[in-house]
This record gives sequence, structure tokens and C-alpha cells, in this order.
Amino acid sequence: MSQYNFTFSEVMTKKTKPYGKDLAFGRYFTDHMFVMEYHHQKGWYDGKIIPHQPLTLDPASMIFHYGQTVFEGLKAYATKDGEIQLFRPEENIARLNRSNERMCIPQIDPDLALAAIKELVRIEKDWIPKQEGTSLYIRPFIIATEPYLGVAPAKQYKFIIILSPVGAYYKEGINPVKIAVETEYIRAIKGGTGEVKTAGNYAGSLIAQQKSAAKGYTQVLWLDALERKYIEEVGSMNVFFKIDGEVITPELNGSILPGVTRKSVIQLLKHWNEPVTERKISIDEVITAHKEGRLEEAFGAGTAAVISPIGELVCEDNKLVINNGKTGETARKLYDTLTGIQYGELPDPFNWINKIDV
Amino acid sequence: MSQYNFTFSEVMTKKTKPYGKDLAFGRYFTDHMFVMEYHHQKGWYDGKIIPHQPLTLDPASMIFHYGQTVFEGLKAYATKDGEIQLFRPEENIARLNRSNERMCIPQIDPDLALAAIKELVRIEKDWIPKQEGTSLYIRPFIIATEPYLGVAPAKQYKFIIILSPVGAYYKEGINPVKIAVETEYIRAIKGGTGEVKTAGNYAGSLIAQQKSAAKGYTQVLWLDALERKYIEEVGSMNVFFKIDGEVITPELNGSILPGVTRKSVIQLLKHWNEPVTERKISIDEVITAHKEGRLEEAFGAGTAAVISPIGELVCEDNKLVINNGKTGETARKLYDTLTGIQYGELPDPFNWINKIDV
Ligand SMILES: Cc1ncc(COP(=O)(O)O)c(C=O)c1O
Ligand SMILES: Cc1ncc(COP(=O)(O)O)c(C=O)c1O
Repeated sequence: MSQYNFTFSEVMTKKTKPYGKDLAFGRYFTDHMFVMEYHHQKGWYDGKIIPHQPLTLDPASMIFHYGQTVFEGLKAYATKDGEIQLFRPEENIARLNRSNERMCIPQIDPDLALAAIKELVRIEKDWIPKQEGTSLYIRPFIIATEPYLGVAPAKQYKFIIILSPVGAYYKEGINPVKIAVETEYIRAIKGGTGEVKTAGNYAGSLIAQQKSAAKGYTQVLWLDALERKYIEEVGSMNVFFKIDGEVITPELNGSILPGVTRKSVIQLLKHWNEPVTERKISIDEVITAHKEGRLEEAFGAGTAAVISPIGELVCEDNKLVINNGKTGETARKLYDTLTGIQYGELPDPFNWINKIDV
Repeated sequence: MSQYNFTFSEVMTKKTKPYGKDLAFGRYFTDHMFVMEYHHQKGWYDGKIIPHQPLTLDPASMIFHYGQTVFEGLKAYATKDGEIQLFRPEENIARLNRSNERMCIPQIDPDLALAAIKELVRIEKDWIPKQEGTSLYIRPFIIATEPYLGVAPAKQYKFIIILSPVGAYYKEGINPVKIAVETEYIRAIKGGTGEVKTAGNYAGSLIAQQKSAAKGYTQVLWLDALERKYIEEVGSMNVFFKIDGEVITPELNGSILPGVTRKSVIQLLKHWNEPVTERKISIDEVITAHKEGRLEEAFGAGTAAVISPIGELVCEDNKLVINNGKTGETARKLYDTLTGIQYGELPDPFNWINKIDV
């Protein structure tokens, strides 16, 4: 048991679990949630696990007006042996605190955050779905709750964790998706908030996604704000290109979100002695490599979709069909290895797994 | 009376009004609020005026995660004759709908929005403070309420209007403020969300404001994201410089918020046959003009502060004391004229005032 003692109020009647249904992503929520309060004179206090229930917030709460908020996303996996595993939760918690710093939100004790996640998941263990590719999505987030209409960091916050049993993030699953390069709208710029997980980054991206969804594309690929030619990332994934046998991903430049999956992919490739480079890569370089038959694979990497092969990339008049629209061998090997480790079917040489006592 | 019939549930016990107190800005809220719902299959429905009360929202509501939201800010003024006046509310409503478009939020019927504002202010008329420089701040906002953890435009929203009796936005009032030029962080970029009123723009700006507040500055002056040299605007004001008798303000370029006060200032100056230009203006141009004794005035313009003279502008090693740190004549004349029209003490040649029947 952890050193933290969170009060636990159990629900009276548990919900019916959506087993057997198409879970999709982020539509169902478990019976309980974690909530902790912050007041500038008290610090963080009163961490508790209570029934999943509506928040009651004054309409003047700063979250509604000035968007001071951060979030994280990670998953709990059930192994065949009935164990429950988290994948690199320390990385998510460290990123949460980096996001907090950028957004002027008070830091959270990482041990406490991890204990809260583990305790909540332990209580909700029956909600972890067991079918292949499913898991329990964990969404920690912090919102500014002080009722005040002035642009300044808030004096009150709530830290909340909710859980959602999930299936595939994209309806395509591990099958290749179609991605459109966005040339009008911009997601982020160095000096802005692109490298942290905060709501505004996603709000601003909706219009581009709506536009590309209308044309049949699953997500957009963002270009840099300054020169509008270097590749940044996909909506909720970092992106990789395999050209001439070398795997290339955009280097972290202050506007790209440093993904935990991205980091793990790079570590795996290095471990396998496969060439992997973090550097600037322009959309023109990708188009040229494709023209010359040197673009072998392209794929996204993120917690929600794990590895998502890109079968078609469209940039204005250029339509790149990649690897005949099929999942490439590197994407497949990374997917199999990552999910193998996550579901406890492969050894965990890097100590990425954090088990939950059941 | 308007063609719209909003249900009205009156509070049982009215709050004590904060008369005589230092109102400051955005700390007190009136007895009632307006709320209207949106559902993708029904459109906007069920507009009602109810007691100011907490919102109850599922913790998975999209506003908390992906920040899909827009807001506005305008004021109701009490005249000496007991009339209630709004200043150009049609402009705010038009901007709200432009913000909605960018943020993938459904449009609101402008006549309905205006009727809702007027009806709520009419009911709360006793809350409009009467001391000089005070008014009733009106905050319409829309939030995505659908409980769903996927990055996509929501299918459910709430449109809410809350009211707050306010005094001076800056503790300096009409007295000159000190502003620091921000050289590290970026507020907005063309292709992003800077030209609309959405929470993420403000969340991202907090860190710069905190940094400059620690050094004794009231607000930051933002530079453009691309070349980091052209002036954009101040935290919640557009900005004007008077150089060699000409008033210059940055042209609307896709990342600057098109302020209603800015527009009114330009119209007034033109009406007075005073030279006013909208164009790119670099921080170096301002520094040079100051060095050569040609920078006569600098001031911000926005609903909250009306006109706010800039007495000191600091940019890295350059500290510009402007007009001896005193309010300049153009700033003073604009302030007097704008507030004169707003409080019904001067004629309204442009038809800016929209009166509320009491
Ligand atoms: C913008 C963005 N990029 C990349 C990622 C991938 O990050 P991770 O691998 O940590 O899930 C995410 C999802 O978290 C994201 O939201
Ligand atoms: C970023 C920003 N710029 C400028 C302004 C001034 O606009 P307005 O004159 O319409 O209040 C505001 C306030 O609304 C603002 O938030």
C-alpha cells in the first residue's frame, strides 16, 4: 500500500460495464474518480476517490474563460496472468509537471500523483477490458477553479483523474490511416504552448481536423509555424519516416509535444541497432524521397493509437501512397514490441512497466 | 420587449451588493445568469435566466480537456438620468460568431444573443454601480459540454452570460501603466487562434505576465511570432503610438484581436481629422522615435481599461519613459470622449449606444 491515504467513498450502485460493445475511445467512464484540491494558502490537499460525478463549478471559474489547464493520457493494461500494468507512468507525471510549469499551475508531488493513479486503477480493476488492443485509458487533468474574471494565474485548482475503458483510437486500428498535410492553420510555435499538454493546443486544431475529415482524412500533419515547411507532428501522435533504411523523426524544437511513445520508439530502434535520427525534416524531403522510391514507411506514435501506419499522405496536389498503403515492417515490429511489453507478453528490458498490486 | 421569451426563475434571496467597496474587476457576480443549451440534433434551445449558480458538468466534458470555448466582454453603463446603455454590443456579438467559426462552435443568432444580454442586464439593473468609472461587465461565453475524450468538435454546448459590477481594470485607473516587451514567449501567430477570443490565447500568456509582474510591470507587450520585432498588442488591449503627431496602431494581421475599442479609437481620430494609420510597426521604430524625441504618446485601448496610457515601456536594456510618465493629450481626449459617450454625457454621433428599456 502507498504512503498516501486517500479517502474512498464507494458508489452505491455500479454501472454496467460496456463489455462486448465496440468500446471506441473515450465514451465510457468508470464508477470512480480521484479529486484533489489546491488553495494557494494550503497547497494541494484533500485527495480522495469518490464516485464519478459531475463537477460543480462557478460559471466564473477561470478554466471556462482563460483556459488554465493541463492534462495527461496513459493506459493500464491487463495481462493474460491477471496482472495490471502501467507503461512509463513516471514519464507522464514528469510531463504533467512540465506542463504545469509552463501554464503557471502549481507542481504536483510525483509520488502522490502516481499513488493516486495506482490506487484508482486498483479500485477500478474490473473495468479494464480484456479483448485484444483494449485497455483502461487514464486521464489526469488539472483545472483552474477560482471564480475570477481577470487574466492571472488562479489561486485555486482541482486535480482530477478519470478512467475510460477503450478500444482502438482510430477506427482503422493498426491498419494504415490517411493523413492530410495542413497548409493553412498552425498548431504551435516555439514560445507558445505546443510542447506541453494543454487544452488550447487542441482547441485551435479542431478546424483543420474538421476540414481534413470532410475530405476523408483521419488526421492532419502539422508543419512548423515559421517556415511552414518542416514537419512537426500529427494531431495526437509524433511522426516517423523511414527513408533509405533510416528512421527519421522531427527533433524536439519547442513546439512539438515530447511523446512518451516517441521516446520509447527511439529507444527501441537504438536497442535494435537500427538507424534512427532526430532532426529537422521538411515535407519536400518526404515528397522527393517518395518520388524517388526511397520513402519506405511513415507512421505515427502515441499512447492512444500506439503505432499508426500512414498509408496515404496528401499535401496539396501531391498524393503519396506509402508502402502500397500497407503496414510496414518497422511499424509492425514496433507495434508488436510495444504492445507486447505493455500487455506483459514480452520481456521488459528497459523497466518501462510499473505494476499495480491487485 | 423582445421577440424572445426566456424563462425567468428569480432568486429567493438577493445578495448584498458590493457598493462602496473597491470593486476592482471581476470579483463580484450578480444574482442571475443566462444559460442556453445546444445539442447537435436540436440546435440552440431552452434559453433561460436563472439564479447565478454553479454549473454541473461531467469531468469528461470537452471544455476541460480540449478547451473548445469562446468568450466576449462588454459593459453596461448607468447614465446620470437613470438610463442603461450598452456600447456597440453588435460588434461583440459579431466577434463572438467569428470566434465560434474559428473554434468550430455553432453560430448563435445575433438578435437572440443581444436580446439575452439586454434582458439579463434589465433584470439586474440595480447591480450597475454608479460611481465614476464603474460599470456592469458582461461576460458571454460558450463551452463544449459533451463528455468525450476525443479531439473533435463537440456535439453539445452551453451559452452562458454572467455579470460583474466592476471598477478600474488596472489599479492605476487612467494613470499611466508600465509595460514590458516580451521577447521570449509568443502569444499568437497567423493560422492560430490569436484573432479570436478563446481561452487558450490567455492561458498561454500567463507565464509572461507573471514574469513581468514580478518585475513591477502591469502587462506585457507582445511581438509577432515570425520576426519577433513587430508590435502586436498588450495582454487585453490593442496598442497605439503617437509619433510626430501621427497615431499608429498595428494593422490586423491574423494574430491580433480586432478590438471594439481599437475600432472606435480609429473612427474618432478620423472624425477629428487627426492622422491615424494602421500598419506594421516594429519595436525598433518605437525605440528610435523615443531616442529622437518623436514618440509623443503610447496607450492601450480595450473594453476593460478603456484607454490606458503607457508611462513606461521597457524592452530588454531599453527603458522608455513616455511623455514624462504622464497621460498624453490624445489618450486623455479619447478617454474623455469614449467614456462621455458610454455614460451618456456626450452626444453619440456614430450611433454606438444601444439603450436598454428600464
Ligand atoms: C499533440 C500530441 N502529440 C503527440 C502525442 C503522443 O504522446 P504520447 O506518446 O506521450 O501519448 C500526443 C498524445 O499524448 C499529443 O497530444
Ligand atoms: C487580447 C485582447 N486584445 C485586445 C482587446 C481589446 O478588445 P476590446 O476593445 O473589444 O475590448 C482584448 C479585450 O477584449 C483582448 O483580450
